[in-house]
Amino acid sequence: MRVTDLRATPVAIADPPLRSAFGLHAPFALRTIVAVDTDEGVVGVAETYGGDAPLRALDAARALVIGRDAYRLTPLRVELDAARRPAEERPWEARGFAAPALFSAIEVACLDAIGRQTGRPVCDLLGGRVRDEIPFSAYLFFKHAGDDEWGEVMSAEALVGEARRMREQYGFGSLKVKGGVLEPDREVAAMRALREAFGPSVPLRLDPNAAWSVATSTRIAEELAGTLEYLEDPTPGLDGMAKVAERSPIPLATNMCVTAFEHLPAAVAKRSISIVLSDHHMWGGMRATVELGRLCRVFGLGVSMHSNSHLGISLAAMTHVAAAVPELTYACDTHYPWQTDEVITGGKLRFHHGALPVPRGPGLGVELDRDALARLHERYRGSDLRYRDDVAEMRKTDPDWRPHVGDW
Amino acid sequence: MRVTDLRATPVAIADPPLRSAFGLHAPFALRTIVAVDTDEGVVGVAETYGGDAPLRALDAARALVIGRDAYRLTPLRVELDAARRPAEERPWEARGFAAPALFSAIEVACLDAIGRQTGRPVCDLLGGRVRDEIPFSAYLFFKHAGDDEWGEVMSAEALVGEARRMREQYGFGSLKVKGGVLEPDREVAAMRALREAFGPSVPLRLDPNAAWSVATSTRIAEELAGTLEYLEDPTPGLDGMAKVAERSPIPLATNMCVTAFEHLPAAVAKRSISIVLSDHHMWGGMRATVELGRLCRVFGLGVSMHSNSHLGISLAAMTHVAAAVPELTYACDTHYPWQTDEVITGGKLRFHHGALPVPRGPGLGVELDRDALARLHERYRGSDLRYRDDVAEMRKTDPDWRPHVGDW
Repeated sequence: MRVTDLRATPVAIADPPLRSAFGLHAPFALRTIVAVDTDEGVVGVAETYGGDAPLRALDAARALVIGRDAYRLTPLRVELDAARRPAEERPWEARGFAAPALFSAIEVACLDAIGRQTGRPVCDLLGGRVRDEIPFSAYLFFKHAGDDEWGEVMSAEALVGEARRMREQYGFGSLKVKGGVLEPDREVAAMRALREAFGPSVPLRLDPNAAWSVATSTRIAEELAGTLEYLEDPTPGLDGMAKVAERSPIPLATNMCVTAFEHLPAAVAKRSISIVLSDHHMWGGMRATVELGRLCRVFGLGVSMHSNSHLGISLAAMTHVAAAVPELTYACDTHYPWQTDEVITGGKLRFHHGALPVPRGPGLGVELDRDALARLHERYRGSDLRYRDDVAEMRKTDPDWRPHVGDW
Repeated sequence: MRVTDLRATPVAIADPPLRSAFGLHAPFALRTIVAVDTDEGVVGVAETYGGDAPLRALDAARALVIGRDAYRLTPLRVELDAARRPAEERPWEARGFAAPALFSAIEVACLDAIGRQTGRPVCDLLGGRVRDEIPFSAYLFFKHAGDDEWGEVMSAEALVGEARRMREQYGFGSLKVKGGVLEPDREVAAMRALREAFGPSVPLRLDPNAAWSVATSTRIAEELAGTLEYLEDPTPGLDGMAKVAERSPIPLATNMCVTAFEHLPAAVAKRSISIVLSDHHMWGGMRATVELGRLCRVFGLGVSMHSNSHLGISLAAMTHVAAAVPELTYACDTHYPWQTDEVITGGKLRFHHGALPVPRGPGLGVELDRDALARLHERYRGSDLRYRDDVAEMRKTDPDWRPHVGDW
């Protein structure tokens, strides 16, 4: 099954004014919808990061992909591997969209094509699902008031309301809070309010995106012992995380200091982390995530799953990966409830009791809605947003705003 | 594609009187030929260790496998996983044939079936081949005279003759010597004689199977610097290997102190080894070996491949795995030239310039010869050999013989 074309369509999707340590989400989030055409008439799709960088990378990689057998992806991975060539021979490498992300987009689309051709769900191509449905976590944000149904959420009380509503609508059994937004002690109060409101049967996580100092992180880890399932990236860097981990009664998770395989040896040696947040978009694809699961188990690390703002193709892929990785035992992160747009037919995928059934259809089990894609692509063309800049967006309302980086 | 039966046929194959630190090969080596029948009429085959233990394990696992979808193997792996159940609930576990070996046999047979059903070579199901042919190494043994064409080989001179003949017949570009048989200094002399005879373009390896002390290993590693590509298991245990590794100018490889994923964290922490000898039969299958490759790359370890006495089904599987693991950059070990029996149609697979082309046919690309299988099975039934015991075999000719274990 030869690949006859690799197509990338950039889209802009509505995004509420969500806050994080990095600033404020812009009115649109950018994604790229990837399609591989094959000589057997089957088309496979994938979804990845948005904006200029992925488009340039996918365009530069097109010649490497066309003519390739969709089953034979490892040679492509080796070819794209940054370590093997000088930078000037890697035109597909773009800032913020490295070779693993590029390979992932191509791999997911090819696995979707193979699944469609063989009548098999993608998770079967990865060894088969170990679970029939994937629990996701509510992803709670502090946020500004905006053109959305959620209103302003800048207090513990409002966050409890947001959580209640999200649980009512989706049934999520775990709650993750994007922190690093309010004063650290106010976020502690917010976590306690959530515990108070929902009780100990609802696991809670807090992710300050490395806004805190080692001292603050350590103090808060001690204060929130018994309240948090895990604390994600309280402080920057493997050394800082190791210092916190040494005293923290709460396991530390990361999607910042360990974001690629090559970060793992130092993280293991320094004992910086207990849990890796996997992300097939970033870590080099679905097979790479299965491999990450094995590696984490071998080295005694837990596995959870990270998300960015995304549509249903990414959600389907995340669900297949999570089904095929036995080690992924935490509810997965997803921004999906915050997105009102969609590019798949049948509208948004539906959570049942906070979980998504693993799609049973061939491939990823979702179908691209070409009209919706065209609409969201037009919106991309009509916008001047070409990369994510939450700091710039934040400064539109607060010109002096600066992110906290390990100094709170 | 449901599995409708799991069948295991024990065979006894002719084996020359090869020596190692463990003793002497018996006249027969034992293997098990595994077949999975499916409801789509496709039959997949595999080859694994022989004797009582694998038979008992495969028999005990039969009920777990029948009715299972051949694509959905990861749940089976999880179910077989020793860590998850008390021993009395793991009837398939047998001494010398642990869950990873059992799973591997089932996985290979299922992947062969999937490959046959989809018309794809097995390596394509693992992500595709990164090389078209797999270089193997000549596996040189000291040996007794026997009912074979090789005669007695118990000196450096005879070993050079064996190497020359094996290179002439198969074209092998690398030479591995099974050591731990002669006095260590005589094996040093043998390696020097090989270097003298074939020059520096032919990589040499020596595997004393942990017969040597740390002091002997260290001294010989220094003496053979520049002569050996790697030194395999000179001494027992991760701590002993670490002491040797600290001073050895030659990389240390292992198939003894690291034989399962759970051995890797300590090996990495202690810096005991530089190269892992993979073996899909032992490490939990083909996908597990791909995962091992990734893990080794991440932690800066090289990957080579181990072998036991085996037939063509194993060789085909080894070739597919080696094709799909980018990190496997050393010529693979194989006992294959020492075996005159075969269970596949068309006779023995043929090496070209010491390499085997990756089979292009569906599945493993080999066909079971049912007559040959019946013949080798009859030989098994007629023999009383039910497990490998090289010490006992050795004592038939030398009643006082005892193996060296780190004391030479």
